[in-house]
Amino acid sequence: MIVRPRPGLLTLFFVLKGSIILRTWPHLAAVGALSVIVVAAHRHAPQIVPGINPAPLTLIGIALSVFLSFRNNACYDRWWEARKLWGQIIQSARDIARQTVVLDKGPDDVSPERREILTAIIAFGHAAVGQLRHGTGTRAAGGPALFAAPADTILHPVAARVGLLSRQGRLVPVEALALNGSLGHLTQALVGCERLSNTPLPFAYTLLLHRTAYLFCFLLPFGLADMMGWSTPLAAMLVAYTFFGLDALGEELEEPFGLLPNNLPISAYAAVIEIHLRSAMGETDLPPMPVPQDYVLT
Amino acid sequence: MIVRPRPGLLTLFFVLKGSIILRTWPHLAAVGALSVIVVAAHRHAPQIVPGINPAPLTLIGIALSVFLSFRNNACYDRWWEARKLWGQIIQSARDIARQTVVLDKGPDDVSPERREILTAIIAFGHAAVGQLRHGTGTRAAGGPALFAAPADTILHPVAARVGLLSRQGRLVPVEALALNGSLGHLTQALVGCERLSNTPLPFAYTLLLHRTAYLFCFLLPFGLADMMGWSTPLAAMLVAYTFFGLDALGEELEEPFGLLPNNLPISAYAAVIEIHLRSAMGETDLPPMPVPQDYVLT
Amino acid sequence: MIVRPRPGLLTLFFVLKGSIILRTWPHLAAVGALSVIVVAAHRHAPQIVPGINPAPLTLIGIALSVFLSFRNNACYDRWWEARKLWGQIIQSARDIARQTVVLDKGPDDVSPERREILTAIIAFGHAAVGQLRHGTGTRAAGGPALFAAPADTILHPVAARVGLLSRQGRLVPVEALALNGSLGHLTQALVGCERLSNTPLPFAYTLLLHRTAYLFCFLLPFGLADMMGWSTPLAAMLVAYTFFGLDALGEELEEPFGLLPNNLPISAYAAVIEIHLRSAMGETDLPPMPVPQDYVLT
Amino acid sequence: MIVRPRPGLLTLFFVLKGSIILRTWPHLAAVGALSVIVVAAHRHAPQIVPGINPAPLTLIGIALSVFLSFRNNACYDRWWEARKLWGQIIQSARDIARQTVVLDKGPDDVSPERREILTAIIAFGHAAVGQLRHGTGTRAAGGPALFAAPADTILHPVAARVGLLSRQGRLVPVEALALNGSLGHLTQALVGCERLSNTPLPFAYTLLLHRTAYLFCFLLPFGLADMMGWSTPLAAMLVAYTFFGLDALGEELEEPFGLLPNNLPISAYAAVIEIHLRSAMGETDLPPMPVPQDYVLT
Amino acid sequence: MIVRPRPGLLTLFFVLKGSIILRTWPHLAAVGALSVIVVAAHRHAPQIVPGINPAPLTLIGIALSVFLSFRNNACYDRWWEARKLWGQIIQSARDIARQTVVLDKGPDDVSPERREILTAIIAFGHAAVGQLRHGTGTRAAGGPALFAAPADTILHPVAARVGLLSRQGRLVPVEALALNGSLGHLTQALVGCERLSNTPLPFAYTLLLHRTAYLFCFLLPFGLADMMGWSTPLAAMLVAYTFFGLDALGEELEEPFGLLPNNLPISAYAAVIEIHLRSAMGETDLPPMPVPQDYVLT
Repeated sequence: MIVRPRPGLLTLFFVLKGSIILRTWPHLAAVGALSVIVVAAHRHAPQIVPGINPAPLTLIGIALSVFLSFRNNACYDRWWEARKLWGQIIQSARDIARQTVVLDKGPDDVSPERREILTAIIAFGHAAVGQLRHGTGTRAAGGPALFAAPADTILHPVAARVGLLSRQGRLVPVEALALNGSLGHLTQALVGCERLSNTPLPFAYTLLLHRTAYLFCFLLPFGLADMMGWSTPLAAMLVAYTFFGLDALGEELEEPFGLLPNNLPISAYAAVIEIHLRSAMGETDLPPMPVPQDYVLT
Repeated sequence: MIVRPRPGLLTLFFVLKGSIILRTWPHLAAVGALSVIVVAAHRHAPQIVPGINPAPLTLIGIALSVFLSFRNNACYDRWWEARKLWGQIIQSARDIARQTVVLDKGPDDVSPERREILTAIIAFGHAAVGQLRHGTGTRAAGGPALFAAPADTILHPVAARVGLLSRQGRLVPVEALALNGSLGHLTQALVGCERLSNTPLPFAYTLLLHRTAYLFCFLLPFGLADMMGWSTPLAAMLVAYTFFGLDALGEELEEPFGLLPNNLPISAYAAVIEIHLRSAMGETDLPPMPVPQDYVLT
Repeated sequence: MIVRPRPGLLTLFFVLKGSIILRTWPHLAAVGALSVIVVAAHRHAPQIVPGINPAPLTLIGIALSVFLSFRNNACYDRWWEARKLWGQIIQSARDIARQTVVLDKGPDDVSPERREILTAIIAFGHAAVGQLRHGTGTRAAGGPALFAAPADTILHPVAARVGLLSRQGRLVPVEALALNGSLGHLTQALVGCERLSNTPLPFAYTLLLHRTAYLFCFLLPFGLADMMGWSTPLAAMLVAYTFFGLDALGEELEEPFGLLPNNLPISAYAAVIEIHLRSAMGETDLPPMPVPQDYVLT
Repeated sequence: MIVRPRPGLLTLFFVLKGSIILRTWPHLAAVGALSVIVVAAHRHAPQIVPGINPAPLTLIGIALSVFLSFRNNACYDRWWEARKLWGQIIQSARDIARQTVVLDKGPDDVSPERREILTAIIAFGHAAVGQLRHGTGTRAAGGPALFAAPADTILHPVAARVGLLSRQGRLVPVEALALNGSLGHLTQALVGCERLSNTPLPFAYTLLLHRTAYLFCFLLPFGLADMMGWSTPLAAMLVAYTFFGLDALGEELEEPFGLLPNNLPISAYAAVIEIHLRSAMGETDLPPMPVPQDYVLT
Repeated sequence: MIVRPRPGLLTLFFVLKGSIILRTWPHLAAVGALSVIVVAAHRHAPQIVPGINPAPLTLIGIALSVFLSFRNNACYDRWWEARKLWGQIIQSARDIARQTVVLDKGPDDVSPERREILTAIIAFGHAAVGQLRHGTGTRAAGGPALFAAPADTILHPVAARVGLLSRQGRLVPVEALALNGSLGHLTQALVGCERLSNTPLPFAYTLLLHRTAYLFCFLLPFGLADMMGWSTPLAAMLVAYTFFGLDALGEELEEPFGLLPNNLPISAYAAVIEIHLRSAMGETDLPPMPVPQDYVLT
């Protein structure tokens, strides 16, 4: 996740870090170069490179905007759902820290059972990160790697421990119910993350919009050459900047657990869970808070 | 589900597997052929095939984009809801695996009751696939086949067993409550899947947008012939590629449990549930993980 | 609900059943006739019927598309929410069938209490259909008929019976809780259905969009007459087909419990609940599964 | 809420009651008058009132459609959420009627405790209406009036009564849990209604879209005068009818608890709750069902 | 939050407080000045500043409208979700006030335990405001400040107290369950607020749309100069007013917990919680209700 203040108007056009232009500039340059060639060719050999009427291009451009907007919406929803699921993991971890307070003799006397449970939850967070990040970029090699759920099995001994504490009367039924509910929320969030991780947007959507966007931007100079002359490269590149940018950004948000700049900092989330739970156990020798490096938090 | 990495710019235009073009190319070819005929006729007999002013076509085209986007949104939501429901099935299966740990004497001593329950859950997964896939393509023969719920009845003996364990004191009330909750979630997810499976998008929507999209694309050459000349086939086919493609893709996503390339791999999900639960029962002779065949996971 | 396979390209344009054109054709014919008159008048008396510049019509047309899309979205959401609520009724009925299994002595010995409860649930389904369908078409006569909730009162004796069984110890607390929860879900779904049934879309929306769509389509021939000549009737009717069709379809989906072709088959749902619960009680003399008649399931 | 059947095509254009035109007609007349002046001035003094090219107006018009559609969506969602919250109140009232059946000795012998609880729920409904309606139109005088929650305090004695019944064993724990849950749902719905009531759409949105819509409609005649001549007033008023109408309708739906024609009939809802609960207590001398007056139900 | 009545048509154009124009006017002035220069230059030196054809600008403008609408939607959803989360905090506080009534001996005898719990909830509200507001504007300095959760730790002693009351039998299990549930809802809402606070919209979106909107508005005068002459500054500024305004408004809503005029009045919410809970404890010396200052409630 990029963490930086919004630039002012002056620096706005020169910010690179966090801009999607770092990924799309070769294609932008290609559109620009093509525009120059098309305009020059149209000037010198109009019978070979005739001007195309731009009316159908306008129609395709508007249709493309509507469809790209739909895809961006879907990808953004995935990203935000992923964030919500990690919010649920953070919340459940805190809930468990609070729900196990009753196991302690007092504020300064953390019981071994509470320590055992909270340590397992910390491990769950880190295991979830490993499980979700491990799959990044290797999706095509087959989904299976993502299907195994090591993080989930960490919760089995916790469930057994809660069952035992409940039978021993250390947890009254209501408390055991709440704790089991929180474990269920952790599983739910993890299953949700796996869903996002191993179910990309239907491939045909990506392909269809990607192809149409590129075809459109490479046809645009032909439509503009006659009408705009040497302004064509600028106009074509501005259109391409928007369309390629939204396309690339949608692609980045589609898989929210990766290591790209606009992905979610799930390592930091797991670290924060660790700090919070260790602190709840009265530890003072805590790991440092995660800090963005070069504006990027991972 | 298509499982493959996103192609680079060079291969982008030559990827066929997973592209919707495999289904729409005859119609694209028809539009192309019609365009050639219209342009030729307009050139040689303009008094018979006069050019139509494209302004109303632009209006229809934009309106069509907006409506197609609406339909795609609805179909995509169905597909994603189907995925979420299967996520809920996977989660409930895991929850039940964790919630029944308390029945065991120890980590290596799986009780027969737990084995009975988990085996029924495995069967539920496969039965749900059979029930949902069996109906695919035969919807017109009448909904009844889908209304029967064989998967659901598998849960009745489990409910009876949980009731018995609860009366025997093997499950404390809190645990019986949680287990019954998980059974309820399985029913809920199954009913949701049946809802998606036997309630298509209102037929009139499909018909209206399908007709308008085809009429539009077959009228387009008449509107472009005068203005664009021999560029008409290219432009008409590009528009038709986008509109037919989104129409066909929406149709594919509308019924997410089928066997088409962009449908959900529910067989694989059921297999993964089986592997997970068998592994939770300590079995080591597990079936192989499902692997995509020719980029497609079913 | 229309239950039929998607027609192929050839038959696509000749399917009538399920098409919204059955309801809009008089208006389409009016637009076509007006177009013919306008074109003829413009040809013979251009000083009386001058051509209007179509540019503002394009603007209104696009704005209308955006707004119609919004209304369709809202109506479709109503229809889909209605379907979800009936899914919840079906699910709760199945949950109750499963949750009452513990009342039986064995798989073949259905207890009278379970029989009493399940019979009431079957009656609830049919009463809900009567309550929701009875109001259809008579909304203007006043909402009150819909406010009474006969279906809801059927659940009161069930609640009393569950309370008694709970006090007798035949249901352990956890089971009584789950059963009461299912009864609550039935009430919730019924209240949701009543909400959809007695709260139409704000009347002013319907009126505003309806009026604008009709005014637009009746003005369109004046805008096209000069530019398109005798192609005007075709173009105006194509636009009118889309706009009138979406308007009429939205109207049909707005009240999802009616008897129009695209409404929900709630009678069939109630019948399926009856079959499922009777079968769960071991009955074999079941009513026949509902079958679509002339492609329509009610 | 307007309760009337959809008018046929003939009467469609003459329905006034329920139309938003009752609120926007002065502005429509202003646009019409301005158009006449502009066209006349352009005809007689084109050097003073030159025709503006309408192309940028088309751009602004389309952008405005998209943004107005967004605002309408948000306002409609508020209105529908308000309806859902009242649905939740109605449902919770019915749930409480059903959940307290166990307090009675028999169907005809309503216990005083049940009577006390149901009477408080009836009062809650009416108090909620008073609280929400009292604030209508006086929002600018300061939010505080809405922040007080008289309806909520009505539930405190009910909670105390349920606690007592639970300690006396008249309610088994499961039943007390369900009743407390229903009380929680009432609070939740009330807080939701207060949220809608005291948090309008961000003021800047309303201002921005309102201003742009009015500026646009008052500039439109200048853009059309040259091209459309004396058709200008008609076209400008049609555009203004749509834009002003959606703007005014959005404003009306934004505060769903008021007394405007398209607001929700929450008084009627509270009356229906009273009738339902009194009937559940065996009373037969019920107040009359609310009936729409001049097509409007409040 | 701006609290003021909607202005009438006459004052509409002169309202400043609450208008986004206070933030965008320097950029609007820049667009206006540039327009004047471009028109003058085009008049006197058309060979140096030629007119650009506005057709591609229309395309970019429409695409930009669609994308800006998407971003506004996302930002508005964040703002509304933040409001809902605070609604949940207010509701949970009220629920706890009602759920602890059973601890009292009578309506006028507030038990010390209830007082302790409600006092902690009041402190929770104020701590949540401090935690969320403290981070405002310092996001770029690193997320950590927001990750610590002082408000959450306030709930730990409450959970311990509830556990003790439950073991002492002062709370029956059902009541302890409900109270723990309310504590869980407070944590959930707080985690949700932190999520909104420390996860801005992906930076690349903001950058991409911001850049495109500014580039578009600064190019617009070149496209209009030839066609509109001295009307150009007016038209360009109207477009810029809408686009810059929506951009700035989206930015303001994106971080809903700040102190900008359109942000949420969370201090007021915390004050209202305090008043409500103190009043529930029978106190009469209440702090004053928060009142908007200069139309702004913070």
